[in-house]
Amino acid sequence: MGKAQCSYVVILACSLLVNLLVVFKLLYTDGEWALSWTKRSAEQAEQVAAISCSGHGRAYLDGLVLDGKEPVCDGNPYFLEPFWMQHAAKSAILVAGWHRMGYTYPDNSFISTQLEASIHKLHAVVGNAVTEGKYFVFGAGSTQLLNAAVYALAPENSSSPASVVASIPYYKLYETQTELFRSLDYRFEGDVSSLKNISDADHVIEFVTSPNNPDGKLNKAVLHGPNFSAIYDRVYYWPHFTAIPTSADYDIMIFTLSKLTGHAGSRFGWAVIKNESVYQRMAEYMSTSSMGVSRDAQLRALKLIDVVLETGGREIFEFGSNTMKDRWEKLTNTLSVSNRFSLQKIAPQYCTYFQKIRGPSPAYAWVKCEREEDEDCYKVLEEAKVYGRSGSDFAAETRYVRLSLIRSQDDFDVLIQRLSELVLEERQQPSYANNVLDLNKPLVNTLRRGLLY
Amino acid sequence: MGKAQCSYVVILACSLLVNLLVVFKLLYTDGEWALSWTKRSAEQAEQVAAISCSGHGRAYLDGLVLDGKEPVCDGNPYFLEPFWMQHAAKSAILVAGWHRMGYTYPDNSFISTQLEASIHKLHAVVGNAVTEGKYFVFGAGSTQLLNAAVYALAPENSSSPASVVASIPYYKLYETQTELFRSLDYRFEGDVSSLKNISDADHVIEFVTSPNNPDGKLNKAVLHGPNFSAIYDRVYYWPHFTAIPTSADYDIMIFTLSKLTGHAGSRFGWAVIKNESVYQRMAEYMSTSSMGVSRDAQLRALKLIDVVLETGGREIFEFGSNTMKDRWEKLTNTLSVSNRFSLQKIAPQYCTYFQKIRGPSPAYAWVKCEREEDEDCYKVLEEAKVYGRSGSDFAAETRYVRLSLIRSQDDFDVLIQRLSELVLEERQQPSYANNVLDLNKPLVNTLRRGLLY
Repeated sequence: MGKAQCSYVVILACSLLVNLLVVFKLLYTDGEWALSWTKRSAEQAEQVAAISCSGHGRAYLDGLVLDGKEPVCDGNPYFLEPFWMQHAAKSAILVAGWHRMGYTYPDNSFISTQLEASIHKLHAVVGNAVTEGKYFVFGAGSTQLLNAAVYALAPENSSSPASVVASIPYYKLYETQTELFRSLDYRFEGDVSSLKNISDADHVIEFVTSPNNPDGKLNKAVLHGPNFSAIYDRVYYWPHFTAIPTSADYDIMIFTLSKLTGHAGSRFGWAVIKNESVYQRMAEYMSTSSMGVSRDAQLRALKLIDVVLETGGREIFEFGSNTMKDRWEKLTNTLSVSNRFSLQKIAPQYCTYFQKIRGPSPAYAWVKCEREEDEDCYKVLEEAKVYGRSGSDFAAETRYVRLSLIRSQDDFDVLIQRLSELVLEERQQPSYANNVLDLNKPLVNTLRRGLLY
Repeated sequence: MGKAQCSYVVILACSLLVNLLVVFKLLYTDGEWALSWTKRSAEQAEQVAAISCSGHGRAYLDGLVLDGKEPVCDGNPYFLEPFWMQHAAKSAILVAGWHRMGYTYPDNSFISTQLEASIHKLHAVVGNAVTEGKYFVFGAGSTQLLNAAVYALAPENSSSPASVVASIPYYKLYETQTELFRSLDYRFEGDVSSLKNISDADHVIEFVTSPNNPDGKLNKAVLHGPNFSAIYDRVYYWPHFTAIPTSADYDIMIFTLSKLTGHAGSRFGWAVIKNESVYQRMAEYMSTSSMGVSRDAQLRALKLIDVVLETGGREIFEFGSNTMKDRWEKLTNTLSVSNRFSLQKIAPQYCTYFQKIRGPSPAYAWVKCEREEDEDCYKVLEEAKVYGRSGSDFAAETRYVRLSLIRSQDDFDVLIQRLSELVLEERQQPSYANNVLDLNKPLVNTLRRGLLY
């Protein structure tokens, strides 16, 4: 065999080997599945995700289509969105056309046993709620479960309706929802303090929001008695927003995916219920009012919660609490030199989840306009293009405004910038020198000492 | 160059060419997208779909996991499931982890404009409902919309509650739902005929189910007057189940994905509303009771309805109506020689969608037990392992039973077999000869003539 011939053979052998390897790869693709019917939808999803929105919104599969082709950029992103983009492969789901067409799961219920098990595990891992031996009911977010709980707790065929109350400031939906249904069995009565001359024979249902929306306080029930029951709205009781001092162990506790993973749009919430007959009535409410919760939403919740569980919650709660802590610090710094605006106080507390003392990281700022003339705080802020919700939306004084801190980083940065401008403006006003004499401000006291003594 | 050398060159050239082609294919995969973050979920979906259940149930992504690996076979399949398996690639959706996390769509509503547009188009193509210039509200199946409609139609702050009625036999949920909410503004009063001495000043809300559940009749409102309003439950008004004689044009019409594509588990329905203030009140009900419908369910509905629209509905409605017609024919044949069991009569009718006269293809059989002693028809059938729903579930006599014809082919085949056995047993009884003298049966009349004359 000649030299040239020999090298031909070598090259040929190499080439054939490459052929073999490549064909092998094509057929087996590293032991992976060769995709068939899922390919088209996977490609569509990646194409939509690749559309650049330059930080302004997001392109969605069901976005408005321009000229029949491209989805437009829209959406109202949430502080947790970047977390899910970082975990794209783990959190994606491919839903087959025939997925769960029927009404019920194999146990004839409207509730996924798998999802229930994951939620049990989640609470055990986070240590925010005792769920052993308790019952679960799923609803469209916490929203649908709130009324289901009121329905379940109100006595049947009582001569007078049960009173539904909450402590000001409270989440206004308790009121609007209870009033919308205009039931013979329950009636919204406003603030707990409105119940004067109450006797143990009266039926009272108290909404306890903890951490509270709007002010982040870890509220407890005010009323106690044989016919008094509480619905614990614990939707913000996650390490993103608060230290977890203890595992909550109440008769009815309500949670939602919205404030855990940020998926408000999925409309998925759950109630943890101690008493079997209360559970039966809540389950009956869910069956009769909507035949349970979308199985598509339950599938999504399962996937997302399983991603959370993979690291025992560490990844998402570190991401969430760091983001929220950072925002709170920026906000307090911005307003620290203001006498016109003040914030709620939240004390540092030991967190059993992170096993350390943690500073505040609330979902909302509860801002008070301190100037006597700033009675309509919403209007004051609105003029500076700072958009919040008036205190009146929480049955509180209009001197208060709730600012959301759980939106996108973009939204938050704009908020801080506008508040800084407001504070700068305040400091440039002649009245600032007088206002700094306010005795209630520690900073002011320091200044005062500096100025007067 | 020698002969051997020459053939080496040829082989080498071929090999290199193959290499080039294969590498090109690997990189560009026929101009297709090279999948990245979607691959894992697509593979999972295909692996689950490939699990064989030998015709008994289906393996789902969120099925109960055995030994941490394989989903088990479960599910309660529907007659349309095979259609979706045949259209696997078109109907699959890949949902990204960050898909629509927010509460609202870009127009600040809880309703996808894209989906609304597809539903408009669907009704125009099928010709079953006039939707131009009307409003849409989405709900968790038709279920949630039924009460939303009652709420919207009941007068506010009236001295006496509105009466809610229906015509026997009626879908019992109207009653259980209206009674569950125990509203000050409306009250369930049962059959339309219960309204004696009614005046034009009284407020009445009539549920009109058309085609009717259970008997498939194209009902119309019984009551007419200035304060009488009707909620048209048109969930079965699709070519699967009935001829479409005209495009329905009522003030409130309710539809659901469940009876269109078979996706009952998605809990997605819609109401078409003429009056703006009624629309406002229904939208308010949806916002306050659940903040709208799961965006995941809306995404799925959009995908499925778009597959339906691709062929102007022809593919799915031909599949559906042929299946249902075939089942009805098998059922009527099976019971044609029975004197013990009779079925509802549905006359052939011109269908504007298929542009021809069509025989019946109802979703349910409304069976009557004709023997005097068979007062509890449910029990009679149950003993033969034929499971239906008692007439009492439709406020009708227990002499009636509703049998579902919309389950899987497997379920239907078992149903027919058991009914055949019942009929065979009947014919072998000595009483059969007497019963065939029943004057009301055409077949019997023929026999009678043959026997007596």
